[in-house]
Amino acid sequence: MLSVHLENGIVAVKKQPLPRVAEGFARIRLLAAGICSTDLELQRGYYGFSGTPGHEFVGELEDGTRVAGEINLACGHCNWCARGLGRHCPNRTVLGIVRHPGAFREFLTLPLVNLHRVPKSVPTEHAVFIEPVAAACEILDQIKIAKGSRVAVLGDGKLGLLVAQVLQAHGAKVLLLGRHREKMRLVEWSGVTTEPLPEKMPERAFPIVVDATGSPEGLRAAIAMCEPRGTVVMKSTVHGLVPIDTAPAIVNEITLVGSRCGRFEPALKMLASGKVRVGDLISEEFPLDRAPQAFARAATKGVLKVLLRPPSS
Amino acid sequence: MLSVHLENGIVAVKKQPLPRVAEGFARIRLLAAGICSTDLELQRGYYGFSGTPGHEFVGELEDGTRVAGEINLACGHCNWCARGLGRHCPNRTVLGIVRHPGAFREFLTLPLVNLHRVPKSVPTEHAVFIEPVAAACEILDQIKIAKGSRVAVLGDGKLGLLVAQVLQAHGAKVLLLGRHREKMRLVEWSGVTTEPLPEKMPERAFPIVVDATGSPEGLRAAIAMCEPRGTVVMKSTVHGLVPIDTAPAIVNEITLVGSRCGRFEPALKMLASGKVRVGDLISEEFPLDRAPQAFARAATKGVLKVLLRPPSS
Repeated sequence: MLSVHLENGIVAVKKQPLPRVAEGFARIRLLAAGICSTDLELQRGYYGFSGTPGHEFVGELEDGTRVAGEINLACGHCNWCARGLGRHCPNRTVLGIVRHPGAFREFLTLPLVNLHRVPKSVPTEHAVFIEPVAAACEILDQIKIAKGSRVAVLGDGKLGLLVAQVLQAHGAKVLLLGRHREKMRLVEWSGVTTEPLPEKMPERAFPIVVDATGSPEGLRAAIAMCEPRGTVVMKSTVHGLVPIDTAPAIVNEITLVGSRCGRFEPALKMLASGKVRVGDLISEEFPLDRAPQAFARAATKGVLKVLLRPPSS
Repeated sequence: MLSVHLENGIVAVKKQPLPRVAEGFARIRLLAAGICSTDLELQRGYYGFSGTPGHEFVGELEDGTRVAGEINLACGHCNWCARGLGRHCPNRTVLGIVRHPGAFREFLTLPLVNLHRVPKSVPTEHAVFIEPVAAACEILDQIKIAKGSRVAVLGDGKLGLLVAQVLQAHGAKVLLLGRHREKMRLVEWSGVTTEPLPEKMPERAFPIVVDATGSPEGLRAAIAMCEPRGTVVMKSTVHGLVPIDTAPAIVNEITLVGSRCGRFEPALKMLASGKVRVGDLISEEFPLDRAPQAFARAATKGVLKVLLRPPSS
């Protein structure tokens, strides 16, 4: 089968034998996969990754059932797993990120417990977004957002666009601040208000601010914009040390919440409900054997989601 | 009356007329005041302060009632005040810090609503600690700490020693990590376990970590020590930008809570109950007219609380 291999920043496509299927695992035929910013970071050399990347995917089982899969492979035995927080299991591997080959190949494997059936109403290319939509929904698992709450979302990349839609669908009044009019326009149908990032951010203005900028300036701006006793959700992974001004966070008693992966159930519901639209976020599709070109395209400024399709699907 | 004046880093003692008392305010005769790290920061030039500093005090009213006073003078009319959060009122002045002359003088003024009667069982020199004890108690107003929870407190300065005692008194199992054996020994009577700061901090080890180190390294260490989904309480004001590694905070979904001043009621209860002992934290007392020497002493390494007493008390 075809399999993407990433090493020292080079994306290559190789022929490999079908993966062996361990007990409790399923072999899944890839239908479509998405290139995520994390994949581009792996290419840039973070985490010293080498192997097959890819963790956003939809595939099918031997009986034709379409499935998506949670990306953390938990041990199932530790305290974290017992508390239902396998996503924080210290012994976990992570699909396409940590010691488990990823989804950019014709056949992949995952534990059966990780799989979720994709409802008929959700097209394959939309279901590829389950993982990032779950990451957006994770915010609702971590903090209380009352209906009608004013929430500012900073950043109009893929994650920012999803977070804005998810929180608006939940009932918040979302203001999305970004640099790209044409990207922000994609979510205005949902009732999200959009504005270009102002030169000077409004201070103490929002009870909840989500930083999805992916930049150190984003977190600093989010802290300054947040009301006293308010909450800043940290959705951007920025590598290295981020200089932040802790004084306003302490004086205004702001809570900063680190937020990562989420459960798939609410994300599937969001996608099935039509309250979150992802089709417009797909910039381009490439066949799996053109993965190097697909990675280059995904890394191009202004491009949103790039999908990979195996040759047969 | 004698009044301490701070300008351009110089502490001086001046003679001044008695302060006028506006409606709704009380004139309070100073009995004792404490020099806080914030006062030393004002001396170092933060906030461009000039005037009379001092916000930790006990005084008496004309009828001899001993009182302590909340330091934030709220407007009483805004949304924050309506929510009982006058400590975050954007129009507030702050005793000895922001546009209201402080307590390092023979007579000071504060709104009647700010005053709390000091119970007979609490000696004046202990009641001076109400404000910092309230700052420690504030943690209990912000986050839930179950009885028996393991909490790490980093830093054995005055605030760290108070936080450790308050959380232990609340029922947590506190480990205090600091650099000074002799300071940490002062709180061991309460059941707090103490250990010298290790070369390498234990990772993912505590559900709750309080950073009271006053150093940028403290916050980084606190994040590393915190369990996934755990809470780091930020009690240190560090000036300027603090470089922190946001990646572990996000991957482990850690919540960082900025924490500042607190309500006086629980602090008075803590002091009256004897569950928090502050007498041992007093390093030295100076008369008010030797304020310059007192400030110098308070800034000396290893010194804990320095008190000022007016000449007549």
